[in-house]
Amino acid sequence: MIPREQLMETARKVYRRYGFVPIDTPALEYLEVLTGKGSEETDRQMYHFTDNGGRAVGMRFDLTVPLARFAAQHIHELGTPFKRYHIGPVWRGETPQAGRFREFVQCDFDTIGTTGVVSDIETALVIHELLHELGIQQFRLRINNRQLLTGLLESLGLREQSTVVLRGLDKLEKVGVPMVQKELLAAGLAESQIEQILRFASIRGTPDSILSELSQQLHGNELAESGIERLDTIQKALIAARVSDQHFAIDVSIARGLDYYTGVVFETTLTELPEIGSVCSGGRYDNLADIFTKQHLPGIGASLGLDRLLAALEKLGRIPSKPSPAEVFIPLFDGDRVSDYIELASIVRKAGIRCEVYPEAKKLGVQLKYADQRGFQVALIAGSRELDAGVVQIKDLRSKTATEVQYRNSQEALLNGIQLMLSMNRGDLLA
Amino acid sequence: MIPREQLMETARKVYRRYGFVPIDTPALEYLEVLTGKGSEETDRQMYHFTDNGGRAVGMRFDLTVPLARFAAQHIHELGTPFKRYHIGPVWRGETPQAGRFREFVQCDFDTIGTTGVVSDIETALVIHELLHELGIQQFRLRINNRQLLTGLLESLGLREQSTVVLRGLDKLEKVGVPMVQKELLAAGLAESQIEQILRFASIRGTPDSILSELSQQLHGNELAESGIERLDTIQKALIAARVSDQHFAIDVSIARGLDYYTGVVFETTLTELPEIGSVCSGGRYDNLADIFTKQHLPGIGASLGLDRLLAALEKLGRIPSKPSPAEVFIPLFDGDRVSDYIELASIVRKAGIRCEVYPEAKKLGVQLKYADQRGFQVALIAGSRELDAGVVQIKDLRSKTATEVQYRNSQEALLNGIQLMLSMNRGDLLA
Repeated sequence: MIPREQLMETARKVYRRYGFVPIDTPALEYLEVLTGKGSEETDRQMYHFTDNGGRAVGMRFDLTVPLARFAAQHIHELGTPFKRYHIGPVWRGETPQAGRFREFVQCDFDTIGTTGVVSDIETALVIHELLHELGIQQFRLRINNRQLLTGLLESLGLREQSTVVLRGLDKLEKVGVPMVQKELLAAGLAESQIEQILRFASIRGTPDSILSELSQQLHGNELAESGIERLDTIQKALIAARVSDQHFAIDVSIARGLDYYTGVVFETTLTELPEIGSVCSGGRYDNLADIFTKQHLPGIGASLGLDRLLAALEKLGRIPSKPSPAEVFIPLFDGDRVSDYIELASIVRKAGIRCEVYPEAKKLGVQLKYADQRGFQVALIAGSRELDAGVVQIKDLRSKTATEVQYRNSQEALLNGIQLMLSMNRGDLLA
Repeated sequence: MIPREQLMETARKVYRRYGFVPIDTPALEYLEVLTGKGSEETDRQMYHFTDNGGRAVGMRFDLTVPLARFAAQHIHELGTPFKRYHIGPVWRGETPQAGRFREFVQCDFDTIGTTGVVSDIETALVIHELLHELGIQQFRLRINNRQLLTGLLESLGLREQSTVVLRGLDKLEKVGVPMVQKELLAAGLAESQIEQILRFASIRGTPDSILSELSQQLHGNELAESGIERLDTIQKALIAARVSDQHFAIDVSIARGLDYYTGVVFETTLTELPEIGSVCSGGRYDNLADIFTKQHLPGIGASLGLDRLLAALEKLGRIPSKPSPAEVFIPLFDGDRVSDYIELASIVRKAGIRCEVYPEAKKLGVQLKYADQRGFQVALIAGSRELDAGVVQIKDLRSKTATEVQYRNSQEALLNGIQLMLSMNRGDLLA
């Protein structure tokens, strides 16, 4: 829970830095609000019951449906653009397995009520900054625009076949070109159409070279051309915001689901752990809440995969195995001198250092074993003689080195000594 | 949600500063874990159902029963003392009314597995620091010890009558002495017994005078005497930790519920708003988890009344009516210069200032109306001519004053100018 809370705090900080506001919605919604809004699977997995008042209710299975219901009810007071983030638990009654739980936390942010490219750019910047603030250097934000493929299919007269084409492209990497060719042939596409689709899907390179190649291949289709222009605006703005070209790429191969997204889409992979998949994904949609309101609400959003990212950080050894609740431990030597130990602790805490006093005057060995189990880094050791003299020993619990300082008349030596030892013990990503 | 999140963040920060670790438990527990663990009322109000796997489950109605279940399962790995905090929603199917909701957040911290007085002291210090960090100056932490009354009743041979006595004392302030006298007479107590109980309950004064009066009245009863000594140790330690005597008091009149607490108890009242009741309460209990485990787990804990405190801060005018998501607003004058506006925003954000760019190049009036609705304090205004020259106008959205600065070659003037305007606009407690 310690790294988990730190991750959520980082997310909140970054979201707010871009003007997103927090919302929360109840765990329980009327069943009719939830039913039929996800997939058949989410309907089947939903926890639902009749409450004491005879109302059919369900536990939310994602944060998007509650956002749609919330926006439909409140968008007139809120006004647009409305930028919200929402971090909260959702429930799905599926079979638990590694990384899949019946209760898990979603961590979403969305900008609704605008089609402006600035929102696309700021969504990308938020994703970039989230990973950066978590101390992750090795990642790549992959950006695509669904308008490209939609435009291509339109110009090939294949717009109705988009589902089968998307499904084929989605597994291109896994099954290879010949298999996908065969499948598309079987679905009734002409060889020349398939060739153009596969040529499109194979474009790789720098953002500039990709965009120039796309301009040639998709020349003349309005939807695709506006999609290319948007990608160009986005990549230029990312560079203006000093995002390294190591950290983002235009990638025409990413699709993100079949029906929901209509514009820019994002995926984020950790270059050290590509196999875990995207840790932050999202995209632009045409209409958030058409089920609940007639108001047209285009938007863009993304979701941080909290559990997946935590699992990844753990695999990469970036999460301390003993995350310390506090940094400084004060053993209680003398049960008659409680006030002196509390005074010492309050000096340390007032300097912003987390600190804990052992609650009972047990043997020092027992107290230090507790400190070790809890992962404390520094102990302040003083018996009654030291307390009388106003001195205390600052002990590094890893290296076992110690130094004695005066603390009652001047707190400087004490606080500097602690800070020095703590700084030598740092280095854990989320400590 | 903005002040709500800030309140929770402050609570987390203070809890951690004292070495408490976060835990979370699922919203759903097996029904048998929850049933019969609260009151008849919580049993009746509980949301419960049979899940898809045929299991009887219920939604937690507090965080104490889940802690007891968690401790019983894990205390052997965790070791004692175990200090945890838990902030999370709980559910009760009651009739909603002002300040009472079917879903609400509890904000608990507990130290379990120890009877040491240090834990009592640190619980008091956490409560004090919570209110202090929230910018509340006018409050009083009232401390009592249930051992005193229990000891008195023991020495009067009335231990079996403690429930009726507690109930009487609980309404003493409301109904007055004669009414309570009558009630206790009716319950079979002798006049001399009633007189001693009422004399005890009327003790007031400074901590020292109260403790000395208590020592006289309760002389010879072991339980009461150890209770008095503990209160004395606590008050001395609070003074050693520089807690002002304005902020705490010993108050023999507080009882906190009938059966659960056995030692020190706490209540916290806002002196400007005593009528809302205690905003942070708790106390010491003999055994947390006797329903779930044979291991004896004494402990002490308290709970911050989040909704009540928020309502109080709102009443006291300490919550800004327009809490700003971000501080700085950048209108988009020229849709062809998106990169320039994004660059400007990224300079501001890298200095730790929250900032939002309007996503569409609408009329300036529309954009500034949005900024006003959202409560932004400062706008950075630049058209294409200003962007060409690398200058921007910093505008105070309340006073309407503005100043123009160069930003492209040196960011100092820009950032200093923004900080100056923001500092003039501060003053809201939770802003």
